[in-house]
Amino acid sequence: MNKTLMSSSFEKSHCALVFIEFQAEWLNEDGVLFKRLVQDKDTFRSAIAQAELVLASARKNGWIIAHAGLDLRDDPTYSLFGNGQNVLGLRAAIPRAGTWTGSGAEFVPPFVPMPGEFIVHGRSGASVLKNSTLDAFLRNNRIDTLFLMGFATHVCVESTLREAHDIGLNTYVVSDACAAFTRAQDEHFHQHILHHFGAGIDAASLVQQLEK
Amino acid sequence: MNKTLMSSSFEKSHCALVFIEFQAEWLNEDGVLFKRLVQDKDTFRSAIAQAELVLASARKNGWIIAHAGLDLRDDPTYSLFGNGQNVLGLRAAIPRAGTWTGSGAEFVPPFVPMPGEFIVHGRSGASVLKNSTLDAFLRNNRIDTLFLMGFATHVCVESTLREAHDIGLNTYVVSDACAAFTRAQDEHFHQHILHHFGAGIDAASLVQQLEK
Amino acid sequence: MNKTLMSSSFEKSHCALVFIEFQAEWLNEDGVLFKRLVQDKDTFRSAIAQAELVLASARKNGWIIAHAGLDLRDDPTYSLFGNGQNVLGLRAAIPRAGTWTGSGAEFVPPFVPMPGEFIVHGRSGASVLKNSTLDAFLRNNRIDTLFLMGFATHVCVESTLREAHDIGLNTYVVSDACAAFTRAQDEHFHQHILHHFGAGIDAASLVQQLEK
Amino acid sequence: MNKTLMSSSFEKSHCALVFIEFQAEWLNEDGVLFKRLVQDKDTFRSAIAQAELVLASARKNGWIIAHAGLDLRDDPTYSLFGNGQNVLGLRAAIPRAGTWTGSGAEFVPPFVPMPGEFIVHGRSGASVLKNSTLDAFLRNNRIDTLFLMGFATHVCVESTLREAHDIGLNTYVVSDACAAFTRAQDEHFHQHILHHFGAGIDAASLVQQLEK
Repeated sequence: MNKTLMSSSFEKSHCALVFIEFQAEWLNEDGVLFKRLVQDKDTFRSAIAQAELVLASARKNGWIIAHAGLDLRDDPTYSLFGNGQNVLGLRAAIPRAGTWTGSGAEFVPPFVPMPGEFIVHGRSGASVLKNSTLDAFLRNNRIDTLFLMGFATHVCVESTLREAHDIGLNTYVVSDACAAFTRAQDEHFHQHILHHFGAGIDAASLVQQLEK
Repeated sequence: MNKTLMSSSFEKSHCALVFIEFQAEWLNEDGVLFKRLVQDKDTFRSAIAQAELVLASARKNGWIIAHAGLDLRDDPTYSLFGNGQNVLGLRAAIPRAGTWTGSGAEFVPPFVPMPGEFIVHGRSGASVLKNSTLDAFLRNNRIDTLFLMGFATHVCVESTLREAHDIGLNTYVVSDACAAFTRAQDEHFHQHILHHFGAGIDAASLVQQLEK
Repeated sequence: MNKTLMSSSFEKSHCALVFIEFQAEWLNEDGVLFKRLVQDKDTFRSAIAQAELVLASARKNGWIIAHAGLDLRDDPTYSLFGNGQNVLGLRAAIPRAGTWTGSGAEFVPPFVPMPGEFIVHGRSGASVLKNSTLDAFLRNNRIDTLFLMGFATHVCVESTLREAHDIGLNTYVVSDACAAFTRAQDEHFHQHILHHFGAGIDAASLVQQLEK
Repeated sequence: MNKTLMSSSFEKSHCALVFIEFQAEWLNEDGVLFKRLVQDKDTFRSAIAQAELVLASARKNGWIIAHAGLDLRDDPTYSLFGNGQNVLGLRAAIPRAGTWTGSGAEFVPPFVPMPGEFIVHGRSGASVLKNSTLDAFLRNNRIDTLFLMGFATHVCVESTLREAHDIGLNTYVVSDACAAFTRAQDEHFHQHILHHFGAGIDAASLVQQLEK
């Protein structure tokens, strides 16, 4: 990566902290996704805790915060995904699992959006930038740098990172505030994928920047 | 236009009827936009009535219906539009008018979405396709033909038509189920603009197709 | 429009001058589009002359220039547009007219791109932003303001303006450096359309800004 | 994955075979990317050979073929990527490596596009769908299913797969006609990533389908 981008501090008005899917499906101990998909559960719980530290610092210091969830509560038959028929990937897997159409779509404290924080709407893909209000929000506010936190690292976080790269944004994945299903998947992502599309920063270093 | 596209009937599973902004800002007699912007009010009321006929027929005959509104009720400061600062166009005009953040964003009967009808989320531009869930819904359901109704013809309907053309959809504007601010603006649109991007159909002809 | 945006001068590094379709189909006296579509030919020729003044000033003063043409010379059967079959609008009209696949796609002096000027690739819609390299270029260079010139005002220039608005850019249409088929179409655009999506500036005022 | 999608045969008119970066940077023994990045060179060479078999069969049997390369030969300073300044990821790495602006951008036989095959323009991201003509081509031709081949599996092929999923396409990655830098990277992709976004098929099975 371009070293100069990291050595300097970040300009507050051009940065957004994006929280991806801090919702009950993942964050509750009985969330469907947490129970079925997450294997290294302690790593996952630790990522939630690190994201909480970042969120608290960002709120205290007035950084721009965006909450990007998935919410299909008004589409119980998954018509958005063709009812899961004749489609491949998550669009079929989500209807099969029955996720995101009920209480699993609720944001979990302290990640419940507060006044003044941006709630992303319209997101339907693995990338939270795809066909959502996030990109218009970024552009209209001259934001060019993202810090991504959330779940799962190698699915939605990575898809967001890849799309952000391709549309011209600089993206930092907050390494220990994201989690994959297994620790090995996280390691693979950081070793083989991340540098092609962005850079990494750990939560402690990020908080240091936010407090400046 | 390609005559063969009109001479044959439309294939139900590949078509969507898109209702644009059938919300209180436009449809209520004291809606801000109806009061301030609409000059030929009878033409406008007539368009609502025609759209109602189409909607009733579509519901009776099981055609695919999508409701594309604008709803900023969780963003009262218009952060999506950079708070209306340093931006041109509707992004500045909407915050100045104070629209879409209150009861004006409510759908008005009979245009309130019913179960099984698709509610578009994430729409933030004049085009209801821009960064919304509509396009994913269309693609996942193999829909390639749109029928547009709503307000205003030369603003959001036309922006949607233009974008639909560019991304590869066939679009019919339901001529008498849309309205501009003035009748002259509608006439200009139909005479000088529409054929570059799609085709027109009147409500009665469309209903005839829906009843087949 | 937001008056403050115009009263101040423009920041060079954040602006791009976009030349739309300064190619032989429009600029040559025997270009197919010039001959068949343009009715007020003197207005059209005058727009070319004004754009030339802007281009000369921009080149002299080092402003960012992008050339957005249409070029289908390697797709003589218009497969990009489904061979013009079963599609509405320009996608059918262009194959019927047989434009953009031959010498009509050549840039015309002095609008031939020079080294250091950006040539937009991949553009296939009426909007030159749609699925082209222009947006990535803008984002990667932190450009947020466009000045549009070219043809035709109410078709490709307007589609670009509308899309630019929706994705979060500020756009100025250089009023006398664009032309529609008729003067009346231009007037309609400036009176009824432009302010919803951007603002206007005339070539002389723009040159004054470029020379600062 | 949805088993029914695989058990049936593919409908020719709705499918496109997409060849990603079969260009000299990767395919020539002295290509910069082949030399610097590819570690398991025999696996890589084998993928080229498998893709060749698929291409020959597709040509013989009249399947739809699209060539998606990267070509920056008219932008030697990488202005598209902000000259590689202040950007993260490939946008900085490509200018540093100096790739795609010279003879490395040439298609290599037999992967040189033939008349009737679609050449994707405007592609600038890791995803060959991002801001290119590919998506308009697909939509205008009612193509909803992709078969991806090329390089590198975990970079551009995977980014394309992920974006294809999010916009509503069904994608098959031709497993042995793609290659990553190492065999382990390929294995990780097939085991941990692919099923979230599409499905796999090997070249022999695909050829069998093409010959039907």
